[in-house]
Amino acid sequence: MDVKEILQQIQKGTLSVEEGEALFAKLSYESLGDFAKIDHNRKVRNGFPEVIYCCGKSTEHLVEIYESFYRKGEDVLGTRGTELQFLEVKKRVPTVAFDSISGILKIHEKPLPLKGTIAICSGGTSDLFVAEEAALTAEFFGHKVKRYYDVGVAGIHRLFTNLEEIREANCIISVAGMEGALSGVLAGLVDKPIISVPTSVGYGANFQGLAPLLTMLNSCAEGISVVNIDNGFGAAYCACQINLLALK
Amino acid sequence: MDVKEILQQIQKGTLSVEEGEALFAKLSYESLGDFAKIDHNRKVRNGFPEVIYCCGKSTEHLVEIYESFYRKGEDVLGTRGTELQFLEVKKRVPTVAFDSISGILKIHEKPLPLKGTIAICSGGTSDLFVAEEAALTAEFFGHKVKRYYDVGVAGIHRLFTNLEEIREANCIISVAGMEGALSGVLAGLVDKPIISVPTSVGYGANFQGLAPLLTMLNSCAEGISVVNIDNGFGAAYCACQINLLALK
Amino acid sequence: MDVKEILQQIQKGTLSVEEGEALFAKLSYESLGDFAKIDHNRKVRNGFPEVIYCCGKSTEHLVEIYESFYRKGEDVLGTRGTELQFLEVKKRVPTVAFDSISGILKIHEKPLPLKGTIAICSGGTSDLFVAEEAALTAEFFGHKVKRYYDVGVAGIHRLFTNLEEIREANCIISVAGMEGALSGVLAGLVDKPIISVPTSVGYGANFQGLAPLLTMLNSCAEGISVVNIDNGFGAAYCACQINLLALK
Amino acid sequence: MDVKEILQQIQKGTLSVEEGEALFAKLSYESLGDFAKIDHNRKVRNGFPEVIYCCGKSTEHLVEIYESFYRKGEDVLGTRGTELQFLEVKKRVPTVAFDSISGILKIHEKPLPLKGTIAICSGGTSDLFVAEEAALTAEFFGHKVKRYYDVGVAGIHRLFTNLEEIREANCIISVAGMEGALSGVLAGLVDKPIISVPTSVGYGANFQGLAPLLTMLNSCAEGISVVNIDNGFGAAYCACQINLLALK
Amino acid sequence: MDVKEILQQIQKGTLSVEEGEALFAKLSYESLGDFAKIDHNRKVRNGFPEVIYCCGKSTEHLVEIYESFYRKGEDVLGTRGTELQFLEVKKRVPTVAFDSISGILKIHEKPLPLKGTIAICSGGTSDLFVAEEAALTAEFFGHKVKRYYDVGVAGIHRLFTNLEEIREANCIISVAGMEGALSGVLAGLVDKPIISVPTSVGYGANFQGLAPLLTMLNSCAEGISVVNIDNGFGAAYCACQINLLALK
Amino acid sequence: MDVKEILQQIQKGTLSVEEGEALFAKLSYESLGDFAKIDHNRKVRNGFPEVIYCCGKSTEHLVEIYESFYRKGEDVLGTRGTELQFLEVKKRVPTVAFDSISGILKIHEKPLPLKGTIAICSGGTSDLFVAEEAALTAEFFGHKVKRYYDVGVAGIHRLFTNLEEIREANCIISVAGMEGALSGVLAGLVDKPIISVPTSVGYGANFQGLAPLLTMLNSCAEGISVVNIDNGFGAAYCACQINLLALK
Amino acid sequence: MDVKEILQQIQKGTLSVEEGEALFAKLSYESLGDFAKIDHNRKVRNGFPEVIYCCGKSTEHLVEIYESFYRKGEDVLGTRGTELQFLEVKKRVPTVAFDSISGILKIHEKPLPLKGTIAICSGGTSDLFVAEEAALTAEFFGHKVKRYYDVGVAGIHRLFTNLEEIREANCIISVAGMEGALSGVLAGLVDKPIISVPTSVGYGANFQGLAPLLTMLNSCAEGISVVNIDNGFGAAYCACQINLLALK
Amino acid sequence: MDVKEILQQIQKGTLSVEEGEALFAKLSYESLGDFAKIDHNRKVRNGFPEVIYCCGKSTEHLVEIYESFYRKGEDVLGTRGTELQFLEVKKRVPTVAFDSISGILKIHEKPLPLKGTIAICSGGTSDLFVAEEAALTAEFFGHKVKRYYDVGVAGIHRLFTNLEEIREANCIISVAGMEGALSGVLAGLVDKPIISVPTSVGYGANFQGLAPLLTMLNSCAEGISVVNIDNGFGAAYCACQINLLALK
Repeated sequence: MDVKEILQQIQKGTLSVEEGEALFAKLSYESLGDFAKIDHNRKVRNGFPEVIYCCGKSTEHLVEIYESFYRKGEDVLGTRGTELQFLEVKKRVPTVAFDSISGILKIHEKPLPLKGTIAICSGGTSDLFVAEEAALTAEFFGHKVKRYYDVGVAGIHRLFTNLEEIREANCIISVAGMEGALSGVLAGLVDKPIISVPTSVGYGANFQGLAPLLTMLNSCAEGISVVNIDNGFGAAYCACQINLLALK
Repeated sequence: MDVKEILQQIQKGTLSVEEGEALFAKLSYESLGDFAKIDHNRKVRNGFPEVIYCCGKSTEHLVEIYESFYRKGEDVLGTRGTELQFLEVKKRVPTVAFDSISGILKIHEKPLPLKGTIAICSGGTSDLFVAEEAALTAEFFGHKVKRYYDVGVAGIHRLFTNLEEIREANCIISVAGMEGALSGVLAGLVDKPIISVPTSVGYGANFQGLAPLLTMLNSCAEGISVVNIDNGFGAAYCACQINLLALK
Repeated sequence: MDVKEILQQIQKGTLSVEEGEALFAKLSYESLGDFAKIDHNRKVRNGFPEVIYCCGKSTEHLVEIYESFYRKGEDVLGTRGTELQFLEVKKRVPTVAFDSISGILKIHEKPLPLKGTIAICSGGTSDLFVAEEAALTAEFFGHKVKRYYDVGVAGIHRLFTNLEEIREANCIISVAGMEGALSGVLAGLVDKPIISVPTSVGYGANFQGLAPLLTMLNSCAEGISVVNIDNGFGAAYCACQINLLALK
Repeated sequence: MDVKEILQQIQKGTLSVEEGEALFAKLSYESLGDFAKIDHNRKVRNGFPEVIYCCGKSTEHLVEIYESFYRKGEDVLGTRGTELQFLEVKKRVPTVAFDSISGILKIHEKPLPLKGTIAICSGGTSDLFVAEEAALTAEFFGHKVKRYYDVGVAGIHRLFTNLEEIREANCIISVAGMEGALSGVLAGLVDKPIISVPTSVGYGANFQGLAPLLTMLNSCAEGISVVNIDNGFGAAYCACQINLLALK
Repeated sequence: MDVKEILQQIQKGTLSVEEGEALFAKLSYESLGDFAKIDHNRKVRNGFPEVIYCCGKSTEHLVEIYESFYRKGEDVLGTRGTELQFLEVKKRVPTVAFDSISGILKIHEKPLPLKGTIAICSGGTSDLFVAEEAALTAEFFGHKVKRYYDVGVAGIHRLFTNLEEIREANCIISVAGMEGALSGVLAGLVDKPIISVPTSVGYGANFQGLAPLLTMLNSCAEGISVVNIDNGFGAAYCACQINLLALK
Repeated sequence: MDVKEILQQIQKGTLSVEEGEALFAKLSYESLGDFAKIDHNRKVRNGFPEVIYCCGKSTEHLVEIYESFYRKGEDVLGTRGTELQFLEVKKRVPTVAFDSISGILKIHEKPLPLKGTIAICSGGTSDLFVAEEAALTAEFFGHKVKRYYDVGVAGIHRLFTNLEEIREANCIISVAGMEGALSGVLAGLVDKPIISVPTSVGYGANFQGLAPLLTMLNSCAEGISVVNIDNGFGAAYCACQINLLALK
Repeated sequence: MDVKEILQQIQKGTLSVEEGEALFAKLSYESLGDFAKIDHNRKVRNGFPEVIYCCGKSTEHLVEIYESFYRKGEDVLGTRGTELQFLEVKKRVPTVAFDSISGILKIHEKPLPLKGTIAICSGGTSDLFVAEEAALTAEFFGHKVKRYYDVGVAGIHRLFTNLEEIREANCIISVAGMEGALSGVLAGLVDKPIISVPTSVGYGANFQGLAPLLTMLNSCAEGISVVNIDNGFGAAYCACQINLLALK
Repeated sequence: MDVKEILQQIQKGTLSVEEGEALFAKLSYESLGDFAKIDHNRKVRNGFPEVIYCCGKSTEHLVEIYESFYRKGEDVLGTRGTELQFLEVKKRVPTVAFDSISGILKIHEKPLPLKGTIAICSGGTSDLFVAEEAALTAEFFGHKVKRYYDVGVAGIHRLFTNLEEIREANCIISVAGMEGALSGVLAGLVDKPIISVPTSVGYGANFQGLAPLLTMLNSCAEGISVVNIDNGFGAAYCACQINLLALK
């Protein structure tokens, strides 16, 4: 019994105020449950369809999940999938696609029209797997992405060549490993919000991404906020939210 | 307007089902607010009155808070208070009491009858400030406490002398700094739940309590769970919940 | 020669007081040995039969251990076993069973009647291996378990849907990786002791479970105590002790 | 000599192409210098006037800096100032104002009209110094701020009471110490970008803000990006950039 | 009632075997208690009198402890005392002595004859407080100490000048901060056990003694074992045990 | 259009000052781009040809890169290559050579004449992979290298035997794992700059090179500067710069 | 030319004082080289023959080293060898023996008579690989070893049963993983030096042996010194030095 | 008796070869001692006079040390001195001078002629104390210093304005706190060796200089080597060695 029914029965007199109140006490949790579902719907409406974190899921579970989306004719985005998971899902879901660089495993039959612009800059070719996770996520959510890869210290001239174009984006995702200096450089040149993703690329005192994480958090350049190491998906999510605000 | 009023107005017909539903949509949060208050009442019924974390609060704020309890004739427990805060509160709240070892600052005019037993064991005299925070908290909540202090390596015979008594408690709080071995020793001897509190007492590679924290988390002895470094209050809270269960 | 025999021989006069004293000096340790065995018996009486930590044991040793229990017709629980270990043990012990999710390797021919209730809540499907280690351990010890899996941020409505049921348990085990927020949410909603298990599920600045461990230790919500990362067994042990207290 | 002058002299013939080229080689850096100044101007136009980091500056230097702004009749914002610094600056700059909670030291004679909305939520009263640094910074830059303080675990009902209002903001700044769970809760309820500021408030295994920092970086809830521990200023800067985008 | 008495009463027939067994069950712990006292006596016989850790003790407690030793005419060694503690103890205990470098606070009226030799080498003058804690402790326990201070990198020639003398000691204590290289150098030159004490002397990436601690633990030179950072007392204790073995 | 062309067109009058200024605004970045290229040329002139970081690059990309150098008849140095990468590149680039110890993958058809001297000292044979990365890099850049391997604690006499020769080098690279004491020893004996490379060789509290890194950073011996763990290439680069200065 | 020859030639007059001095200047290093060799001889005399660290050595190098010892008819001890290395060495050195638990790879044809006693206690069967590295090392060096394995928390009665025997050893090696409590327990019961070896056995917040390392360093029990995580060889070396002192 | 005397006496026959050999055995260490003194002289010749680390030294010791230099008429450099130490030394040593920013306490009556050029760049005014320690040290050693302060992100145009001048220096010291990006920027623009000093300036996840330390160690830009956090003196020492090489 949901809110409407309780109210109708009280109106009809088939339920006393006291009974209604008692149901309501229980409903205060149920309504939270409802709310969570509404919240879920809200996300879908806003262009953030269901997302699957493939890593650590058993293959049977994963196949089942994708098959369920496939049968409903719905698109779905999965992150951190493996070649093996792809091959198994493929057996039952012919439309599934896999990007071996980013590990994105998706059904993407009804691509959304792309809106706004998010610039994705990455330091080196080794950071590609994170940058592409961000790029494919944003595109799946219906946002236009411009890629500026390999624009770190070794290729900084490419950054400057494209600076005006980058400045026109609504939001910049900066992906960098090693010492992660790219975000600070970008923040000094561009006045748009920069979502900064440290990557685990590096060795020695890099400590699996701790070095660029600390660099980015401590940057004196203003306008940088940071997501978890290698979290291209999370950066894309934040960037899409900002892009949506700019488009409204 | 709260739940009852909405229902009554719908019953009376002064509110349509649609209007009620709209109010309810908003109320789903307000009811959460209500729930929080109910939850608060629940705590009071269960013997967990309001608690104040004094540290970092401005003196004016703190005086105001204690005065408000004092005026309502309600007891209140504050943790991590200072001598200075006590003296300021004292000016307006004559019944306030301060324990300089634990930093407990409280109005405790209507002590609850003490029930069940919680044993509090501590390694050394330097751990006293944490052990007493736990002891005074549990007593404030209406739980009987037995103190077994200074029963660490240097005084382990005192632990053995009191072992049978300790075994009769419903729950044991084990407070230890340095390497924090006390909890493992206790867990090997007693079959009651042990809430383990690492303290920041030690030097060098103790790293402000990290060493006993890791010791306790890694103990091969079963039946140990751990709270934050120096968190005597948190340990008491857990122990009281368990004591209550044992008394039901 | 044990205590009784020494005393009888002294009574009979076949042993002098001095000889008895000498034996006793040695016995003070042997008695500790005895005590350890008594302690062991105590555990069996309380429903905590022998447990084997399979990880790092040679296959020969493990087969021998299980065979010895099998021959005595005794049940035994092993944690962190592998498929390979299972297959080897199986050759000699036909009744051994293996759970590939949790790595529980057990002989469980005489299941104990299940008593009380322990609720096990877990954040995501990737945390299952820890949650199931806890669940199977508690059941092996003769405790009733209710599973509420996948009730983290992504499925929080399921948590609320089941909240009243969860509140009726004597103790809650909260299993969560990533940022480990589930325990704090539970502690705000339920007034039973919460044994919190951080898992090593996550990536980047998760640092193999350090992030949820710190989150849980620092929670402002009261009533949370914590066991080692991925230690489902330890959490179950604590929860069973509390469940037993509540049933007394 | 700047770009225009070089070009004019070449046009006039008072400078040869070779001489111009030589000047230009030097100018490629000077132009960067110019660019930096242009960049500075850009910031002013966008509502980001000059900001001073007071901490670690000698009092003489600081007085000089503020006096220079005062004489030019310009406003200026300083962060992490001290009472002492304020008193010294005050002697020469009568219009300087100091906020003792946040340490903001500013000349703010010509407040900008406030535009858009940024919601600032904070977990506890101890986090106030960071929340107010963010709030005063954003207001100084000409952005409307709504404060929702003390809405952490202990006061979560206040969060729910204000949820609809919070949802209307263009960007949310979430300030929390202890275990830093507030940001994850907010991200589950609101679909606007959340700039998350861990604070150094806490003790023990909090490790001066490391615990909430890791919690926020690892949050499963989407839409959170993080700035440095206690960095209220940095969060405000990011939030203002986003607010500006939403207003365009 | 102790072991002998129980046995005698059983022999006499004034105690039944069953009563004896019951007493024994209790005695198994009491005997441990006894044992702890015996253990304590053992220490005194072996030249390790009672030691007090002054740090964190209240002045009243400390005065009481020292007064108790003073009245019994017993010597006592206290570590990590302060000037203030000394002055307070002095009021009641005229024979108390304080060493301001090491913080050793002792009654040392009946010095033991010094036996064997322990060499104490220290890297720099800043490490003196630890080296002297070790030296005074060993001397208090009745062991001959030879001091070789300031023999680190800056004064390595002094180490070589004294090498033959150092080699004649039964055990070497090596005290070093900064990068802690002294222990490895010593281990390459001397074939006696080296007890290595890292000190918290240094700055930056020294991390309060972590750097020399790791250096010493990782030394390729054989024959080094390590105690806690700044733990001169612990090193002296180990060295005295070894010196005693060499003298037997 | 580059600087010269703009200036010529302005001189000719085919471009107005305003148009020139607009182009210049854009050029200020392009010139930086140009500058980056010039900078690149500068490196080539100074004897630092293009270097490839092979690790993490896809095999196709790598083959393409090497093929491009091969076709232009240019030499190229790659670091951290694998046997597999070598075999794939070899198929298309017959002149490619691989050093399986250091992982150096290079085309080195036109070796530069070797100048100056860089001494490379390493602690143990396990550090060889880093020492050889440094040695081969320096030789590729045209610098004379003298190798003194296995001169750590176990072989320190070899260090002393070669000391006079080592002192004649312009710069010393010191490669050491375990506790990394070699650099401090060298700095006490030689008055040339020492570039110190900690290696990840060791176990336990070595923490993948953290121990020697901290040792080297904290060394009391003067004249040591440090590069990243295992970064033989980086050390060689620094050493070559110094060698060049000494040769000028 | 060594010291004696120089002196003889000067005596004979075939060398002038100036020539002798010049040779000596060079010899001051060479003599250090000599000294190192003498030092090496010293080790052999004292019962510490050559030891090889197999880990990270190429198989060819290793085969060569063992072959060289084999040809000279000398025994040799290698630590951290692998099955594979053993099989390769075996082809050329028929007398080589391999212990698969400890990874000890040795030629041990002329075992030394065993002297004194070293007790080796270990916490659990998973710590065996470290305990056996210590045991086999000490035996190779000619020291009598008594093994007390699996005497940690789960089997503490075995420790007590053997306590008197353990007390008779000259030195105790305590090997423990998990929380590493064994060393503290031993130090409270035995008055001989305890060389404590943390092992990397454990999971979660054990952090590869960091937890037992910190436990051991922080132990309040006196007489414990610590070697690197998993360093059974180093512990044996220290214990043998102490055993030798006790036997003198 | 030194080398020459031994040789002369053998030549004269007043010493036998055997006696000479015995003296030599002892001398092999004494000669090392001598060598150390020679080494010291070497330093003086090379322009590196005696240096005192004031921090942690007792005032009496310090006064004595400075007085001794003063009486011999020698200059001396002390680092990390305090105002208080200065005032005490001043009483006895009228020529002593103190720099309150860097804490340099020196007698500098006979300044050396300044040679070569070392450029010192620093990120912000808060890094001044480290930059000045470097600058004053280098000048004391007789090296010309050019200061480029406050050229970090906030003032990067000043860096570019001075780039050509900086490029002419023989060596660059780069001093930076916060995220420490300055060194990477410099290394991309200048082809001289860069000695990089992380400073402890910053807050939050800066962790007392850990963030810039990691940034500098991980920089992708080539030619950077790093000294300890805040170690201006060490950086100056390295830079002087390089400057000397360039001048030869």
